[in-house]
Amino acid sequence: MQLGMIGLGRMGANIVRRIVKDGHTAVGYSRHEDQIKEFTDELGDSFQGATDYPAFVALLEKPRVVWVMIPAGATGAVIDQVADLLEPGDIIIDGGNSRYHEDIKRAAALAPKGIHYLDIGTSGGVWGLDRGYCLMIGGEAEQVAHLEPLFQSIAPGVDAAERTPGRTGEPSPAEQGYLHCGPAGAGHFVKMVHNGIEYGAMAAYAEGLNILHKANIGKELDDAHSAEVSPLENPEYYQFDINVPEVTEVWRRGSVVASWLLDLTAAALHADPDLTSFGGRVSDSGEGRWTIHAAIDEGVPAPVLSTALYERFSSRGEALYADKVLSAMRKAFGGHNELPGK
Amino acid sequence: MQLGMIGLGRMGANIVRRIVKDGHTAVGYSRHEDQIKEFTDELGDSFQGATDYPAFVALLEKPRVVWVMIPAGATGAVIDQVADLLEPGDIIIDGGNSRYHEDIKRAAALAPKGIHYLDIGTSGGVWGLDRGYCLMIGGEAEQVAHLEPLFQSIAPGVDAAERTPGRTGEPSPAEQGYLHCGPAGAGHFVKMVHNGIEYGAMAAYAEGLNILHKANIGKELDDAHSAEVSPLENPEYYQFDINVPEVTEVWRRGSVVASWLLDLTAAALHADPDLTSFGGRVSDSGEGRWTIHAAIDEGVPAPVLSTALYERFSSRGEALYADKVLSAMRKAFGGHNELPGK
Amino acid sequence: MQLGMIGLGRMGANIVRRIVKDGHTAVGYSRHEDQIKEFTDELGDSFQGATDYPAFVALLEKPRVVWVMIPAGATGAVIDQVADLLEPGDIIIDGGNSRYHEDIKRAAALAPKGIHYLDIGTSGGVWGLDRGYCLMIGGEAEQVAHLEPLFQSIAPGVDAAERTPGRTGEPSPAEQGYLHCGPAGAGHFVKMVHNGIEYGAMAAYAEGLNILHKANIGKELDDAHSAEVSPLENPEYYQFDINVPEVTEVWRRGSVVASWLLDLTAAALHADPDLTSFGGRVSDSGEGRWTIHAAIDEGVPAPVLSTALYERFSSRGEALYADKVLSAMRKAFGGHNELPGK
Amino acid sequence: MQLGMIGLGRMGANIVRRIVKDGHTAVGYSRHEDQIKEFTDELGDSFQGATDYPAFVALLEKPRVVWVMIPAGATGAVIDQVADLLEPGDIIIDGGNSRYHEDIKRAAALAPKGIHYLDIGTSGGVWGLDRGYCLMIGGEAEQVAHLEPLFQSIAPGVDAAERTPGRTGEPSPAEQGYLHCGPAGAGHFVKMVHNGIEYGAMAAYAEGLNILHKANIGKELDDAHSAEVSPLENPEYYQFDINVPEVTEVWRRGSVVASWLLDLTAAALHADPDLTSFGGRVSDSGEGRWTIHAAIDEGVPAPVLSTALYERFSSRGEALYADKVLSAMRKAFGGHNELPGK
Repeated sequence: MQLGMIGLGRMGANIVRRIVKDGHTAVGYSRHEDQIKEFTDELGDSFQGATDYPAFVALLEKPRVVWVMIPAGATGAVIDQVADLLEPGDIIIDGGNSRYHEDIKRAAALAPKGIHYLDIGTSGGVWGLDRGYCLMIGGEAEQVAHLEPLFQSIAPGVDAAERTPGRTGEPSPAEQGYLHCGPAGAGHFVKMVHNGIEYGAMAAYAEGLNILHKANIGKELDDAHSAEVSPLENPEYYQFDINVPEVTEVWRRGSVVASWLLDLTAAALHADPDLTSFGGRVSDSGEGRWTIHAAIDEGVPAPVLSTALYERFSSRGEALYADKVLSAMRKAFGGHNELPGK
Repeated sequence: MQLGMIGLGRMGANIVRRIVKDGHTAVGYSRHEDQIKEFTDELGDSFQGATDYPAFVALLEKPRVVWVMIPAGATGAVIDQVADLLEPGDIIIDGGNSRYHEDIKRAAALAPKGIHYLDIGTSGGVWGLDRGYCLMIGGEAEQVAHLEPLFQSIAPGVDAAERTPGRTGEPSPAEQGYLHCGPAGAGHFVKMVHNGIEYGAMAAYAEGLNILHKANIGKELDDAHSAEVSPLENPEYYQFDINVPEVTEVWRRGSVVASWLLDLTAAALHADPDLTSFGGRVSDSGEGRWTIHAAIDEGVPAPVLSTALYERFSSRGEALYADKVLSAMRKAFGGHNELPGK
Repeated sequence: MQLGMIGLGRMGANIVRRIVKDGHTAVGYSRHEDQIKEFTDELGDSFQGATDYPAFVALLEKPRVVWVMIPAGATGAVIDQVADLLEPGDIIIDGGNSRYHEDIKRAAALAPKGIHYLDIGTSGGVWGLDRGYCLMIGGEAEQVAHLEPLFQSIAPGVDAAERTPGRTGEPSPAEQGYLHCGPAGAGHFVKMVHNGIEYGAMAAYAEGLNILHKANIGKELDDAHSAEVSPLENPEYYQFDINVPEVTEVWRRGSVVASWLLDLTAAALHADPDLTSFGGRVSDSGEGRWTIHAAIDEGVPAPVLSTALYERFSSRGEALYADKVLSAMRKAFGGHNELPGK
Repeated sequence: MQLGMIGLGRMGANIVRRIVKDGHTAVGYSRHEDQIKEFTDELGDSFQGATDYPAFVALLEKPRVVWVMIPAGATGAVIDQVADLLEPGDIIIDGGNSRYHEDIKRAAALAPKGIHYLDIGTSGGVWGLDRGYCLMIGGEAEQVAHLEPLFQSIAPGVDAAERTPGRTGEPSPAEQGYLHCGPAGAGHFVKMVHNGIEYGAMAAYAEGLNILHKANIGKELDDAHSAEVSPLENPEYYQFDINVPEVTEVWRRGSVVASWLLDLTAAALHADPDLTSFGGRVSDSGEGRWTIHAAIDEGVPAPVLSTALYERFSSRGEALYADKVLSAMRKAFGGHNELPGK
């Protein structure tokens, strides 16, 4: 099967590599002739490239399949341009991180032209080339079915994990690593929630490891602090020098919190045990925020996911004004002065 | 009535002043002869002072009433020393910020000697001299009743607020600003929860004012940030330059969030509209922490009070290690680099 | 000065009463002739009524001032109808609880017609008639200035609270209880955050009172629970039967947490000490949700305000599915069975 | 090597089975002669049993190794009884879920007798027999080293997970699934935090799945609710009928949130797609609570872990009083009536 890919960055490129390795062919679009050449050199006859949209579209077999894999901010404009060159029956896929609201609007806008639209939430990050990508797909069932050969090449496949007890026979698509989640928007909706969960789970580890990291606080008490900050009542219970990197390693086997995130954390802490290469300013992308917007719209309590997002905001100094207000209040009612900074 | 006061710091001194103004007398203990002299000069015949415990106790009429108003860390030792000089029927009061666990232990230890023990949570801060102190009292009913004349002088009195609809006749003690909350420990327990609520309410204002403070973020977007941090979808909705000090002032009258904390906040923001005198390192004292310990022991959900406490921890940099873990994870699965600091 | 009011429900009616009491006049619109008659009987010559928009508009002096005080869902359509009957220079006020996004859109839509638009967040609830309404105003400065005589009658006035230390001379609008917060939308934006804070402060009290309420849990332990739920380590610390209504009363005077919300809570608990008239299903309105949407858009941490909102969702059973997932997980990894319901 | 096991419940029994399978021998204590017989039948010469402590101790080779694997509440008394029968150089292990405070006290109490004490946090639940147990060990280094042959049999071994990149050569103990975390108490401390993280991660999944579960709320709006609860502004965005069991399956391969907890969740949802066998009352055990106590003592922000714990409290109805307070407040300031229950 043939796939057209707009955007040959890390993820787009690796998706192309995975399908070509499985015997499919790819047509790539890039503004940079060099980039096209690199891919042609690497992938040979299985790859054709173009540096303008008309040429790109001309290389595609009908019904054309155009996967757009570029930053969310640019996706809408590119889809508009490409759609003008497509015909009824063609399929546009947004594999990036668009908000699912956009998918619903785009699918509705393309439908009168007979162009089909799929939104595919794609998880796997820098590991996807080897590990495969988890695909969460929104759109019409017929097109999803048509593209299954590609999805099977991009997704990890059933062997990537032990089968769930009770699941037998032919592995379902979900077991192979791709799922038709519903109509337009459903793919990015599920991916959005996936990322919301990711934030929450990451925060759970991070908070817990911080508690381990500070388990020797009973040794460190100084009198300067005890004036304004509550002294520790039982310093004898906080005398542990825990080796946090080793703890993350031991939890990888047999414990309840074993996970891929833990695997990565153990690797990061093995490589940099004191995390000296990080400053602690944690970015967030749209999905974490959109998840909370959705929770609130639905009236679903999501305090853990929200708090995880807010911790990232705070890590970037965004609580500063609120903290100054608190200090001002304390000064006002109790005459308390702020402690000097560390 | 006569009150013995150990600890002539701001709160102890002002309690003495309030009772003397109402016609009671006081005996004060201080290690510093100068301090005793100052009070004698100020209060005349209504005040006697001593610089050692035996002399202090000798000046007290039986049954002696000894109010200890010193930092929580030193209270236990002082009570032990004074108790050795007292007789059955005498009363020791801890008016400071002891954990209520200590009260339960101390009352039990003093009971065999016939010495009564009251724990009095005292709220009012630097404003208590004029405004009166809210007294939350734990101990035996008989001693609480005996000391009511003093409590009436220390507490604000019924006129400090409009009477609650439905409350008529002779104002109850609670309406006058003091309350017998239960046996030993109950006073500090109620004061502890009071402070826990205080943390939560303070955080509610601080978070809300921060949202007002950032209401112009749609004007400030720079491209550097939008690479790693989600860009604002609707900058047109965040174009407001809100005058936060004026907002806190307008809310003082007629709004649902009018409160004494808001009064103080409005005053602080009037005096220092940009809060330039604060760095945003917010201290916490024992009560906020103990409130959460109690909530957890009781199995009572207290996420707002807990979060308020944690925000203070974070304001002092205590989330740093956790934040580094998060950045390390993001780097590991997505290849994301941290943004440079501001 | 004359005010036209569409919507003679509780709040609209009381605003009319406040301005008439101060010597202004009012024109009211209601579909119900009876309602018009009631007001004419009550307010005499100061009030005129109409049951259709053309008649209503015909009664207004130019520049006409039309205050719309109806449920947010209906406001937009009414404004559209009335605007068609108005002329350049006239003023429309939305005093309800519209989302501020709507204000920005409406002001922009009305501007070409020369019609001015103000959004006024109005706080005061059922107490506004006596206590006055706190007014948070968005729109053009000229129109705000023009309407100050009305705002002064509607707002509580400076005497409603002690003046903030440092504020002297002629009381500012904020001190009188109304504030021009910024251009269109700013009024409802500030009112939105006000309600967000309200949720957080309410939750702080509610959680704290729950901790007091359960302070006797050490007496109640039963063996049935201790099998699956962690037993209390120190039951001796949880033997208090706290009189929660009396505690809320005592905190009203001299304590740090004194507030109008506490006044109302004390009154509610005095009238119904066991809260038997409530089931614990807590509603939320738009403002609390929109506050969180704004916090997330701005990147401002608001965990306390968010958590307060989520507690309301949970009170209505919206966590049920999540809780079942947790029980299913516990069963899966540990073989734990759920405890039977109470 | 020989291991004495007190407590032949699920976990104790399976630990015995794992070591015997690896060529070690075991001595078991049980009050029930039947239970001893069953094990003797199953394990043959590798197992000896006793129904009283003296006989049990007599069967042990010196230095004796006594692993106590019983409910935390009973552990202290059993250790006291057994310790009286042991000699200097013998080793007692608490493999249960004691609070680490107890370990510190017990180790100190046993030290003068020359008896060594290890606390071993043991994770693995009902899956440990096959999967192996993750062992987090506190105590003296010499005894930990002495017992490594047993730990190697009980733990999962290095093959249970891919090796962390950068780790080469002889697998470290952590890589084999057991870790000496520090002196007495360190094992249970690390296990405690492990469970705290477990709570947080579980909550992240549960909240996220709830958002998926309610993704069709735009279809379900009824007018009755919209009176008191904010209506959904964009119902068109909430029209998805997400198949939650399939989503959990697809995330198992290639996604960032793949984990053992997710594996179990997918299995549970495959077996019972609507979770009809669960009522949503979620228990908690000591570790989750103790983790928060530790975070607060250390001054480490742990809002995600705390919130996860509180959600369990709420699932059991423990927020009810707080919710009634909120409803009472809303009634008081706004005249709002509660919505009827579902």
